[in-house]
Amino acid sequence: MPDLRHKAAGLLSYLYPYTGRAYRIGVTGPPGTGKSTLISCLARVYRGRHQRVGIIAVDPSSPSSGGALLGDRVRMRDLAGDPEVFTRSMATRGALGGVADDTSSAVEVLDAAGYGTILIETVGVGQDEVAIARLAQTVLVVDAPGLGDDIQALKAGLVEIADILVVNKADRDGTDQVVHSYQMVMEMAAATHPLDDRVERELWRVPVCQTVATDGSGISDLVSWIDAHRSYLQQSGRLVEREQQRVRAELEMLLRQALLARFLAGLEPGKLDGLVVRVSGRELTPYQALQELGISLEGSDGES
Amino acid sequence: MPDLRHKAAGLLSYLYPYTGRAYRIGVTGPPGTGKSTLISCLARVYRGRHQRVGIIAVDPSSPSSGGALLGDRVRMRDLAGDPEVFTRSMATRGALGGVADDTSSAVEVLDAAGYGTILIETVGVGQDEVAIARLAQTVLVVDAPGLGDDIQALKAGLVEIADILVVNKADRDGTDQVVHSYQMVMEMAAATHPLDDRVERELWRVPVCQTVATDGSGISDLVSWIDAHRSYLQQSGRLVEREQQRVRAELEMLLRQALLARFLAGLEPGKLDGLVVRVSGRELTPYQALQELGISLEGSDGES
Repeated sequence: MPDLRHKAAGLLSYLYPYTGRAYRIGVTGPPGTGKSTLISCLARVYRGRHQRVGIIAVDPSSPSSGGALLGDRVRMRDLAGDPEVFTRSMATRGALGGVADDTSSAVEVLDAAGYGTILIETVGVGQDEVAIARLAQTVLVVDAPGLGDDIQALKAGLVEIADILVVNKADRDGTDQVVHSYQMVMEMAAATHPLDDRVERELWRVPVCQTVATDGSGISDLVSWIDAHRSYLQQSGRLVEREQQRVRAELEMLLRQALLARFLAGLEPGKLDGLVVRVSGRELTPYQALQELGISLEGSDGES
Repeated sequence: MPDLRHKAAGLLSYLYPYTGRAYRIGVTGPPGTGKSTLISCLARVYRGRHQRVGIIAVDPSSPSSGGALLGDRVRMRDLAGDPEVFTRSMATRGALGGVADDTSSAVEVLDAAGYGTILIETVGVGQDEVAIARLAQTVLVVDAPGLGDDIQALKAGLVEIADILVVNKADRDGTDQVVHSYQMVMEMAAATHPLDDRVERELWRVPVCQTVATDGSGISDLVSWIDAHRSYLQQSGRLVEREQQRVRAELEMLLRQALLARFLAGLEPGKLDGLVVRVSGRELTPYQALQELGISLEGSDGES
């Protein structure tokens, strides 16, 4: 749908001057940690501050299978009657990199429409989820005690993108152990990270918050930490820096798409098909195929 | 590390003529379904056929946090003493699209080294996992009864990439229900899919296998289904077609990377930085920034 996408781009251009005002909070973590319930709690707090709240839930599923997602959405039912809360599910299946782009667009639209706080929920797995988390100014990584072994593996890569760690379901056995292990990880990270990062970490020490989202315990503390992180970003100049990183990543992604489309359109018909057949037949390596297209792998030469 | 990557590309070119002989089996599904144990079972069967077996486990975690993954690897301990079984973990964090590329390279190396069967394990979430699953000729999607609600959501997008559905832990309560619901999904899919796909589905009806990997029940049936799928692919010509699809996707990914690198290298210094600042300051939309770089979003015009 290049045409539809083009139209969407036009609409977003029109909205762009009205954006940049919303505060974006990313909420990520493995399944079973209670992210949706936690988000409902946060939404109620921000509603109490008379803000319109947008919730974007990125579900790792195909658009064709809405059924499985109803469970999650049902948990947000108590917010459903509030016209100032907008909830939208996005599916992650599609073209590579497309989700981050689409989620970004959804955030822009809500931002322009005056939603002061936008909560972005992802199941914290895979690179797209990390890319989406980076759309947020404050990233909460949510964990819970008593998850299985392979759930543990899922969260291993998440800690390093956390601005705030949340141990939810903190009324369960094993909470102290989970909290303690995160505190140790954070101390180790502070000691071993490269210098740049260490400087930042001295200014912002990632806190470990305990919550029980089902009864609201710990939520006001968590919100105070989110406020504190926001102040830190503003005062340190990191808010601008983060936004620039996000914009750079978005421009590079759009460039990759546009450059490929332009390149393919400029090829003689059947050229790529022929190379695909020869590479599949092991006559040619993928890199030799690129050379036949006049592209060197190094690229940075600028030669071709 | 463009230099290292360039060297790796050279080595892979050297190996390429020796590849294309291994049979690649993808094993994907949500956490908690027992994929690793199932893979151990399959590895033993193929070892019994006097084949060297390669196992590539793609873990959704950062390279820096090996600890959390040990649990999974421990379950493969009984294979660890066998020099004809090669096991390798890959981490999914890194540049977008990078995992699929790296996993593809690892598969090529094992293929060239004479590993007749290569098992590729991914936690079935996100687009990268789907891209990796597509490296395989036969894709097993693994489920189990009694998983939680949000685990259910994780698997929603997976069914459509399955060549064989496996309900593991089939000694648990609720197995019949899971099997029955998959059979219904498959019947619905056969009725509603677009024509092309329906033709293929008439030739290959996705079977639903029941296994208990911990005691080996159902494994020989599953292996028979894998053999049957392989024969189907060979006789229908779909084996060649799948390989061509994979090669096309790989070439496009390499092109995207190379074209962006070449484009950025050709820009005047500071040009992109300046645009990033202006887009961040909402002076310019991302699409206007692309226009300033001489790139139109439509791309397919071939203009500018």
